Amino acid sequence: MRNKPWAIDYLQSNNHIVDVNSTYSKKIKEFFSTDQPLHIEVGTGMGTFITTLAQRNPDINYVGIELDKNVLIRVTEKVLELGLTNVRLLLLDANTLMDYFNEDEVDKVYLNFSDPWPKNRHAKRRLTHSNFLTSYKQLLKQDSIVEFKTDNRGLFEFSLMSMNAFGMKFENLDLDVHDDEHEDNIRTEYEEKFSQRGHKIYWIQASF
Amino acid sequence: MRNKPWAIDYLQSNNHIVDVNSTYSKKIKEFFSTDQPLHIEVGTGMGTFITTLAQRNPDINYVGIELDKNVLIRVTEKVLELGLTNVRLLLLDANTLMDYFNEDEVDKVYLNFSDPWPKNRHAKRRLTHSNFLTSYKQLLKQDSIVEFKTDNRGLFEFSLMSMNAFGMKFENLDLDVHDDEHEDNIRTEYEEKFSQRGHKIYWIQASF
Repeated sequence: MRNKPWAIDYLQSNNHIVDVNSTYSKKIKEFFSTDQPLHIEVGTGMGTFITTLAQRNPDINYVGIELDKNVLIRVTEKVLELGLTNVRLLLLDANTLMDYFNEDEVDKVYLNFSDPWPKNRHAKRRLTHSNFLTSYKQLLKQDSIVEFKTDNRGLFEFSLMSMNAFGMKFENLDLDVHDDEHEDNIRTEYEEKFSQRGHKIYWIQASF
Repeated sequence: MRNKPWAIDYLQSNNHIVDVNSTYSKKIKEFFSTDQPLHIEVGTGMGTFITTLAQRNPDINYVGIELDKNVLIRVTEKVLELGLTNVRLLLLDANTLMDYFNEDEVDKVYLNFSDPWPKNRHAKRRLTHSNFLTSYKQLLKQDSIVEFKTDNRGLFEFSLMSMNAFGMKFENLDLDVHDDEHEDNIRTEYEEKFSQRGHKIYWIQASF
C-alpha cells in the first residue's frame, strides 16, 4: 500500500474511532460507549472481517489492531461508512499488546491471514509464535478462544505445532474451510482471491 | 478383497512369518532371529509400506498387524518374494494390542491410510481414537513416535484433535506431503492413486 503522508493526521482526526497514541492504554473499556464482551483482531488488514463481524454482533465490542497506518485508513473509512459504534481501532505493534491491555479483559482473539514470515529466522514475527501466544493467554479471560484462519500452509503447520507445544487445547479444526463451508464464514477479498487460485483455507479454534 | 476359504490354511503354513493364533503373544522377540529395535504398523493393507521400509532398514524388526486374513495373504507373499527376515505379521484385531504386546517394548508405531470410519458413531474404531492412543502409549518406549499418514482430511482433522487432547507432542507435521516431497517418503499404490485424484496427503509424527 502506498504511503500517505497525511495518514497520521487523518487517523488522529478520527480519534473517536482510532487510538493512535495509546491514549486508552490500560483503559480500553473507556473507548466504548457500552460495556459488553471484548473481542480483538490482531492484524486487521483492510478490515472486511472485523467490520462484517461487528455488524452481525452489535452486542460485542471489537478492537482491530494494525501496525500499518496506511492500511488503517481503509479500516477507519469502513467503520465510518457503516456507522459502527462497536468497533475501535488501534495503531499498535502486536509485540506491545501487553503494554496496552490488562490481564483477563479480552474474551476472544482473532487472527486472519497473518503475515507468514516464511524464513526460519523470522519465525518470532509470526503471530502464532509462542511469544505472542504468551500475550494472548495473559490478556484473554480463562478458557477463551484464539481463532485463526489462513491460506498459508506453512504458517498453519507452524501454528499447529506452536499451539500444541504451548499446551493449547484444539477446540475446532478445518483443513478446507470452503469445502462444505459454514454459513458463518466471512470471506474477505483476500480469502476469495487466494481460494480461487486453488489455496486451501485452514482454520482452528484453540484455548489455553 | 474376495474371501479366500484357504486363507487361514495358507497363513498357518507360513507360521515362520505369520502369527495367526497369537502364539508369540507377550514374547514377540522370540519370533525374530535378531534382537534389534521393534517398529510396528497397525493395519498393513497390501504391505507395500512395511516391506519397502524393512528392505531399507535391515537393522530394525518390523511387525505388521492386519485384521483381514485375505489381505494378509498378499503381505505374506511380498515378504516371501523379497526374502525379508526382519518382518513378521500378526493376524490381530488392533483392539487387542495390549493383550499381545508387553509394555515399553516397541520403538515406533506406524499408521498408514487407516480406515476413516467417517460416521460419528464409529469414531471409536478410528485408529487415532484415544482408546488406541492409550494402547500405543503403553506398548511404546518413553518418547517414542507415532507416525501417521492419510489422504483422508476428516480423519486427519480428527487425529490432530485427538492427539492434542491426549496431550501428545507434535514432532513434525505436513499438510501436503507430495509438495516438496521428502526423499524418504514411501508412496504405496493407494497413496499414488488418491494423490492423482487430487487428494492431499497428510502426515504427522507425534510422541507421548
